Amino acid sequence: MRHLRQITVIGLGLLGSSVCLAVSRAFSRMKTAGFTHRPTTRAKARRLKVADIVFDDIRKSVADADVVILATPICTFGRIFSEIKDALPPGCIVTDVGSTKVLPCKWAAKRLPKNIYYVGSHPIAGSEQRGVEFGRDDLFDGALCILTPTANTNRSAVAVLKKFWSALGCFVKVMPPAAHDIIFANVSHLPHITAAALVNASNAQELKFAGKGFMDTSRIASGPANIWADVLLTNAQNISRGIDRLTGELSKFKKAVRSGDRKKIQKLLESAVLKRKSFVKYKMSRKELV
Amino acid sequence: MRHLRQITVIGLGLLGSSVCLAVSRAFSRMKTAGFTHRPTTRAKARRLKVADIVFDDIRKSVADADVVILATPICTFGRIFSEIKDALPPGCIVTDVGSTKVLPCKWAAKRLPKNIYYVGSHPIAGSEQRGVEFGRDDLFDGALCILTPTANTNRSAVAVLKKFWSALGCFVKVMPPAAHDIIFANVSHLPHITAAALVNASNAQELKFAGKGFMDTSRIASGPANIWADVLLTNAQNISRGIDRLTGELSKFKKAVRSGDRKKIQKLLESAVLKRKSFVKYKMSRKELV
Repeated sequence: MRHLRQITVIGLGLLGSSVCLAVSRAFSRMKTAGFTHRPTTRAKARRLKVADIVFDDIRKSVADADVVILATPICTFGRIFSEIKDALPPGCIVTDVGSTKVLPCKWAAKRLPKNIYYVGSHPIAGSEQRGVEFGRDDLFDGALCILTPTANTNRSAVAVLKKFWSALGCFVKVMPPAAHDIIFANVSHLPHITAAALVNASNAQELKFAGKGFMDTSRIASGPANIWADVLLTNAQNISRGIDRLTGELSKFKKAVRSGDRKKIQKLLESAVLKRKSFVKYKMSRKELV
Repeated sequence: MRHLRQITVIGLGLLGSSVCLAVSRAFSRMKTAGFTHRPTTRAKARRLKVADIVFDDIRKSVADADVVILATPICTFGRIFSEIKDALPPGCIVTDVGSTKVLPCKWAAKRLPKNIYYVGSHPIAGSEQRGVEFGRDDLFDGALCILTPTANTNRSAVAVLKKFWSALGCFVKVMPPAAHDIIFANVSHLPHITAAALVNASNAQELKFAGKGFMDTSRIASGPANIWADVLLTNAQNISRGIDRLTGELSKFKKAVRSGDRKKIQKLLESAVLKRKSFVKYKMSRKELV
């Protein structure tokens, strides 16, 4: 990674600022540059020394970058690609940290010139918090990061990003964008909708009696609505199928509960206990999420 | 509480053993007795010194009790009331830690003699772990505990149990059994089903890619299936209504996502963010769940 002299992060929220901080921790000589269109965020980022330099001009921010990382809401990517495309130095690697990958890959292919190497990234890290002040240099420690090259992606750009995310603490996996979007519809976007729907289905007065169980089950529903709206909008079909599957499982519970079918209720509960047990065991064995 | 010399806990799982340990911490002079029908659990309970005395005869275990606490699966309560009713000393207070209250109150009224004072209790504490070895003397610190007297409940027994649970670290609230079962169907039993249904709707291979969000959203699905089957069976109607409400909220998401309605998606997500924010704020302000 010696040849990477500067990375530029566009968007300095929780993820963007954490990328800057993690880069500073991992590569003491790599220069970090940040851009955000919000003056208040720029002021905070400068005060917190999140990046070596914080730009107020997006084109200037990328002019000397070896790697540019978009960390803004997904639906801004198309516009940002158009804005920066002529300011990027030839050979620059562009990536993003968005939670869906099919559409970002299409937008990049359409808008970025041939001498710019785009690869989609998705580091599975974050929290329900938001904002530059929550940035942490260890946010990516032990996190998965998916890279989603297509048939046209430059292979050495993939290799560089593999090393880059690994150095930030990630386990890197590579898969096609479409496979990524199916999997994450199911393991991430559907749980988010589930948590939000559960909160919306609850009575505010009754919630005063909720315990730690409700707290944990609903935690991710506190994630930023604008960012998640983009995720859901850009993965609609897979998510819609996931909702159907969940609704089907809920009907099984309803039927069993209404008919007082203990055997069936216990079977449904046991199945969840066992499936979760093996998932947790797998994660622990890989020292992810510990 | 000076007049309480002995409590007997029937069932020495996570909750039962934690009651014993918390009593020993709170009342140094109160004798703790425990009963469990499993020889291996009795051996463990004795080795771990969970109670001052561990009985292998349920009737003997309650013979000198001032307070008897059932901490077994709910559907065993009726049978246990019948088994112990002639062995209980007159004036004894009987309670339980079950997560539903309408049926336990009915069973107690039908099976326990008039000189025995039953009051339903529901301490909102626990975890997805199970077993005597997970008992903790601080499990009830900061937890809510609901007492559910009926029109026929002895008022001084309610007062004694209020003080008892408070001494164990609980905030005590009093409400009728029916109100309790409606509220906890919504804030506890429905989240449990939601978590289990989400896991059941997931593909085991895909779960390898799940992150902390899925982990937390599904945590309570690891709770013991036999205990939860009893909870669901004894609160069927309220739970069935909750599932309908949740399914309705999920359909709103599906419709908005399929039609690409950003405004609607963001509104649904915002509503969950705000509702959860005020619930978390309330809990924090009361130092519950902190």
